[in-house]
Amino acid sequence: MNDGKTPVIDSLVEFVIALDPAALPAAVTEAASLCLTDWLGTAVRGSKEPLADALAAVINASGGEPQATVVGRGLRTSALFAAMANGAQAHALDFDDTHLPSIVHGSAPVAPVVLALAEWRHRSGRDVLGAFVAGFEVETRIGRVAGRTLADRGWHVTGVLGHFGATAAAGKLLGLTRAQLRHAFGIAGTQAAGLEQSFGTMCKPLHPGKAAMNGLLSALLAREGFTGPTGVLDTHGGLLSTFVGIDDLSRATAGLGTRFEILENSTKAYAACHLTHATIDAGRAIRERLASGVDAITAIECRVHPLTLKVAANPDPRTGLEAKFSVAYCAASALVRGDAGEGEFTDEAVREPVVARLRQRVTPVADAAMGIGTAHMTIRLADGSVIDEHVKAARGTAENPLTREEFEAKFRRLAAVVLPDTKIEQLVTGLRSFTTLADAGKLVALAAR
Amino acid sequence: MNDGKTPVIDSLVEFVIALDPAALPAAVTEAASLCLTDWLGTAVRGSKEPLADALAAVINASGGEPQATVVGRGLRTSALFAAMANGAQAHALDFDDTHLPSIVHGSAPVAPVVLALAEWRHRSGRDVLGAFVAGFEVETRIGRVAGRTLADRGWHVTGVLGHFGATAAAGKLLGLTRAQLRHAFGIAGTQAAGLEQSFGTMCKPLHPGKAAMNGLLSALLAREGFTGPTGVLDTHGGLLSTFVGIDDLSRATAGLGTRFEILENSTKAYAACHLTHATIDAGRAIRERLASGVDAITAIECRVHPLTLKVAANPDPRTGLEAKFSVAYCAASALVRGDAGEGEFTDEAVREPVVARLRQRVTPVADAAMGIGTAHMTIRLADGSVIDEHVKAARGTAENPLTREEFEAKFRRLAAVVLPDTKIEQLVTGLRSFTTLADAGKLVALAAR
Repeated sequence: MNDGKTPVIDSLVEFVIALDPAALPAAVTEAASLCLTDWLGTAVRGSKEPLADALAAVINASGGEPQATVVGRGLRTSALFAAMANGAQAHALDFDDTHLPSIVHGSAPVAPVVLALAEWRHRSGRDVLGAFVAGFEVETRIGRVAGRTLADRGWHVTGVLGHFGATAAAGKLLGLTRAQLRHAFGIAGTQAAGLEQSFGTMCKPLHPGKAAMNGLLSALLAREGFTGPTGVLDTHGGLLSTFVGIDDLSRATAGLGTRFEILENSTKAYAACHLTHATIDAGRAIRERLASGVDAITAIECRVHPLTLKVAANPDPRTGLEAKFSVAYCAASALVRGDAGEGEFTDEAVREPVVARLRQRVTPVADAAMGIGTAHMTIRLADGSVIDEHVKAARGTAENPLTREEFEAKFRRLAAVVLPDTKIEQLVTGLRSFTTLADAGKLVALAAR
Repeated sequence: MNDGKTPVIDSLVEFVIALDPAALPAAVTEAASLCLTDWLGTAVRGSKEPLADALAAVINASGGEPQATVVGRGLRTSALFAAMANGAQAHALDFDDTHLPSIVHGSAPVAPVVLALAEWRHRSGRDVLGAFVAGFEVETRIGRVAGRTLADRGWHVTGVLGHFGATAAAGKLLGLTRAQLRHAFGIAGTQAAGLEQSFGTMCKPLHPGKAAMNGLLSALLAREGFTGPTGVLDTHGGLLSTFVGIDDLSRATAGLGTRFEILENSTKAYAACHLTHATIDAGRAIRERLASGVDAITAIECRVHPLTLKVAANPDPRTGLEAKFSVAYCAASALVRGDAGEGEFTDEAVREPVVARLRQRVTPVADAAMGIGTAHMTIRLADGSVIDEHVKAARGTAENPLTREEFEAKFRRLAAVVLPDTKIEQLVTGLRSFTTLADAGKLVALAAR
């Protein structure tokens, strides 16, 4: 039936089936557990966003077996609907992780699937982490080859490729056979969707939610004998051939199972556009060295990669959302406040006079010699002195990762908007020892309001 | 917010909102009621296919409020899941209607939505027909402009564009405001998917099922204030721009509300590939005129449009499915049996010796001068005599439509595989007087096994 004509799907299937959660390198398991910690914080916090209310209303009307929790809310529903709602909630603030080489928000479509199945099927923490790694690897490896081309054409890479990550993770936890998983990838691929045009609307976060739901649906259907196009990542006429004219994805599977993309993941330490993070780091560092107050600053030059100014050049943001895409605001806010969490990106925070005044003294400069995750800030003071700071890798990138304590601090800060402290501490403790949990689903259920 | 920059979406929204079911031309209402009759027969019959079992297993496990019936089965579930299952069932046999100018199976993604909402919301037959017409027009008008290009690129047109038909129909029956419907189209468009590579797998029929579910989900979410890209059919970066590079869809809305695409619809009178139907008609006509038995036939020449031989040239089909794509088999079977329903396309029917022998005497000839829906058959008999028959428009096309009695005969034949005669006659009576039904949902519920 296969005739060796679907080598990419075959390799991915073999990787997922063969993956032994107990044999994963410790660094990979730890990275996965940090991803789940980070993702859960954003998903809980996202439950307060208007899109979460809309999704909950539709889910409540439709009903479903109480298999899984919509985190941050008092709602249990089918694993399919919970995956959709949680996937959308976690991406609502654009504060979740990014695998930069593939432009895939790696946890976004996969975490909601493994956590919903953890609850529904009472799976161990170790099995859940194994399935998470399987999903993360599959989607980001395809993204390494095709992500940039998809984005250039107008696709939301996380939406499209997340379908494969969600399917791999679901297939692993549901124990699909090789033949079933092959069909599941096809069923998922023919549902893959997501337009970049949706950015700025609630559909951007809906994309990973739908990818999660569709991927889980694909695995569930395949387990019942449903068939799909098994050449979806191999043959001409397959997904990437049809989407962007890429017929050869063979590079995606090189070193699969020995080299792990999850070790290249980036976490957002700040609640702004990823491309502003190095600038925020520079501002924070200079603030530490600044003897005088910020009123003594007469000029601020921010040298950044040209892409940063393509995306985040807004000189005069009026809202918190606009401020996330303003290098000038991010620089000024970091110099004044030394932090850049959700609290620094409210509409009120944008209007704060000291920051508003300071950002008018910022001059962003595009410099093609700068790396994408780097920044150079130079400030001049009223007494003629100059301070500068060069950031080679923003905090939260693979080269400059957050510590577990920093992950947990971010989690606490996000979750505190929704959950009581006692629950938050139970969750932090459980997440810290995730690999030892006999039933990871019990922990997820704690994340209900 | 709109600035006149989304004229296509604005026109479609205005058409859907303004459509008055009571003011539709009688021919349009009748066409819609025949579509529902035809669709319901294929959906009931499709409940016996393996894909229906797989879908029902997943739906049963997921649960849901008993809002709507999965026809042909003893299953009531949420309107969302019922739309998915019914949409897939009805397309499973490839025996549902086709709007040839757009290559959209017009009823496939729309009927499951209006019938699920009819049950859930207890809507009148007239309102259901109005919403059906709204959905049918929207998807086929976009398809008139973009269908062929989408298909050439590898997209399943019904899967992709069905999202808009389903959304329009759901938006009409749910009473969305203009602003909500505008967002609903965006939410649907960013979920639109479906690869032609899925043909031959269960994913082909899944496409209209998912389009139905996604379209309904989009309308339900929009009603709760969910936002989407409102330029999805207008601006660069929108759906067709991203999918196939088409930026201008303005032709799609010309004459909207006065000229109706549903009057151009084709119904399958035979259970084979649409492109073989004129040949079957020719065989049936010659059979009527044939004094001797078919054993006297020494040669059969079938002249058809070249596309027919691209798709349906199989000279030696082994299975019922292959026989549906074999002009030679269709010609021989029509000459022997005078019919071409599901019963003539079983694996056993293909092996039947008289037909198997006769099809070896068939010579198909591609002739670019022939129209797509035409055929010319010439047979030679042992006594040297020749009979020929020219079919200008296959039975079931807009130029040679079936009568209501023929629609009902097809319905009875399909439904009889699943439902008892008493129910079938109740359904036929109800479908015949659909416009007068106070609660069309009660009729749909009768289609449960």
